[in-house]
Amino acid sequence: MSKQQALLEFLLRMGDTSLILGHRMSEWCGHAPILEEDIALANTALDLIGQTQLWLGYAAEVQGEDKTADDLAFLRDAWDFRNLLLAELPNGDFGRTIMRKFLFDAFQSVLLGRLLTSTDTTVREIAEKASKEAAYHLERSADTVVALGDGTEESHDKMQAALDRLWPYVGEMFESDAYDAVLVKAGIAPDPASLRAEFDTLVTKVIRRATLDLPEDAFSHSGGRSGRMHTEHLGHLLTQMQWLQRAYPGNRW
Amino acid sequence: MSKQQALLEFLLRMGDTSLILGHRMSEWCGHAPILEEDIALANTALDLIGQTQLWLGYAAEVQGEDKTADDLAFLRDAWDFRNLLLAELPNGDFGRTIMRKFLFDAFQSVLLGRLLTSTDTTVREIAEKASKEAAYHLERSADTVVALGDGTEESHDKMQAALDRLWPYVGEMFESDAYDAVLVKAGIAPDPASLRAEFDTLVTKVIRRATLDLPEDAFSHSGGRSGRMHTEHLGHLLTQMQWLQRAYPGNRW
Repeated sequence: MSKQQALLEFLLRMGDTSLILGHRMSEWCGHAPILEEDIALANTALDLIGQTQLWLGYAAEVQGEDKTADDLAFLRDAWDFRNLLLAELPNGDFGRTIMRKFLFDAFQSVLLGRLLTSTDTTVREIAEKASKEAAYHLERSADTVVALGDGTEESHDKMQAALDRLWPYVGEMFESDAYDAVLVKAGIAPDPASLRAEFDTLVTKVIRRATLDLPEDAFSHSGGRSGRMHTEHLGHLLTQMQWLQRAYPGNRW
Repeated sequence: MSKQQALLEFLLRMGDTSLILGHRMSEWCGHAPILEEDIALANTALDLIGQTQLWLGYAAEVQGEDKTADDLAFLRDAWDFRNLLLAELPNGDFGRTIMRKFLFDAFQSVLLGRLLTSTDTTVREIAEKASKEAAYHLERSADTVVALGDGTEESHDKMQAALDRLWPYVGEMFESDAYDAVLVKAGIAPDPASLRAEFDTLVTKVIRRATLDLPEDAFSHSGGRSGRMHTEHLGHLLTQMQWLQRAYPGNRW
């Protein structure tokens, strides 16, 4: 495979995960438990959609088929998406939403840190912008995980249940395939497997402070990042997210 | 307004209510509490979709714009729909699903009975076919309302809650407007208001046998049948129902 093909796959993986998780976060708009959280969740959604525009905008450029970031976001079907399965799971309750965000933020901050030295200039520039937001997101979600985990008995139990539920979706973040091998060789992106130790250190520290237990089961779902198999939830999300462009093709603001 | 305009509006109201309620019933497929109910609910959904094809097929013919029943079902947006609000409400639990179906079946059987003497031959023919199915649906949903209402304390309470929740959507069935006046004058369809007494007699009998209390509040939501204002639920339903035609326009089996 060519370097360009591997780069395109990488950009779709980055962009799609941001897009799908950003959409999930946006579903909280108007529904969060307190006003400040409502605004905070909507702001993180906006950050993720902003990053999506950069990743998918570059993907469209690399693809060279005269498409835009919007085309990639709104006119592909489920089997074309390359997001992590973790991102497409339904929000569940507030605790599970925050736990998912924390696990993603931890991974993303480690990954973006490595991308700051990418040999690809545009990847490096996007990583520079996104890593500042990711650092703030991580600080916020980690603090909330600790506050709720080490909170009341009820909030503790909910956070433990959330962690148990989401943990089987963590392993997919660190899978490597033939695309990654090409990216590593070209110095564009790190081997995902090489990020695991730093992620584990970071997550273990926060989870302990939150008085929660990390699940021991190493089983992991996968298929999202490779596009091999998404959950049923992605299709339902796309029906809503893509409605406008599908019903009114080519319309512009 | 012309007789043709009134007829078209009438056919959309009949077809859209069948379509949207049929879609709601289809959502139970694979989720009903026991296998026999699962098949029964799916079968009622199919009956309703079958009736939809007749009503909307005739609507497309009357409209004369070279469209098909499928075009009307899958390519109109929420504001073009003329279904009763009752039909678009989410299913809720099994009890609420059955109560909604019973209230609709009672109305539909009374209405279809009157349409058997319509001056419009096609309306009469559709009513003849649909009324046989409606009679069977009514028998089944009424029996289930009685079985659950006069069942355990829990099932009784759930059915009473369902009735209380749905009753404010009953009044819309009997609203009359300028379209109805034209239809009545032409002998095509009855004045909806004239169906209320028969409906009340039928419903009161079943609700009493079910040991439930009819709500006394006469307040009623409206806006679906007139297309003035649907609930937020219709748009979400359409994003899923219309996905295939929107994403792959013009595709055929």
